Amino acid sequence: MEDCVFCKIIDGEIPGHKVYETDNVVAFLDANPASKGHTLVVPKMHVENIHEASDMDFMWDALVKVSNAVEEAFDSEGLNISQNNGELAGQEVMHLHFHITPRYTGDEISVEYNREELENGEKLAERISGKID
Amino acid sequence: MEDCVFCKIIDGEIPGHKVYETDNVVAFLDANPASKGHTLVVPKMHVENIHEASDMDFMWDALVKVSNAVEEAFDSEGLNISQNNGELAGQEVMHLHFHITPRYTGDEISVEYNREELENGEKLAERISGKID
Repeated sequence: MEDCVFCKIIDGEIPGHKVYETDNVVAFLDANPASKGHTLVVPKMHVENIHEASDMDFMWDALVKVSNAVEEAFDSEGLNISQNNGELAGQEVMHLHFHITPRYTGDEISVEYNREELENGEKLAERISGKID
Repeated sequence: MEDCVFCKIIDGEIPGHKVYETDNVVAFLDANPASKGHTLVVPKMHVENIHEASDMDFMWDALVKVSNAVEEAFDSEGLNISQNNGELAGQEVMHLHFHITPRYTGDEISVEYNREELENGEKLAERISGKID
């Protein structure tokens, strides 16, 4: 898609540090890494988010392969996989991508949220399950 | 696996609010939700983390289906998918699981990290790609 920075990296129009590539998927280093080895796994076809990706189960294999390689390459002590949908959720590039973020003692990554006891679980679960075919 | 709280939910030994289930995968509400509709997608077979999950591409379909359903059920404005490997990365239950966390204006979820300009990209990329078969 025109004006999509990830499409341009995929097409080679702008440089990127690719670490893995198949017919359907590519992985390259994040240009603004949160930690050493921070890598993105991206489908080559431009879709905006997870909701448009029902046919992309090839992504799973890439997620596992790249996670394994990043952990091995840097001997990381942990690893986060994350994927953001929508600006409010932190999505900056509107082309589906998964962050593979290796973790190290003393890194400056923190995830903060209030977690409360679940209430009305039965009703909430019914609302969700009612939306699945 | 004995003493695994997710295995017990899957087996029905302890209660959980299931929203989706197939032969291989189950999704249920997080007992300590970060936001309304926070749901976990979990393979039924006990594996600890992403590194042990190369044969689990059935997870992709479940991730997409549950993400779609959660967004529709609560008309969320965004959605995070996240998966933590290792205590340092925030993994609390040692059975592979993906968080589907819907986002709303004014929620109290924040992700903080320093992101710096990538340096030595070529060398780092080679270290990773060298670990992929």
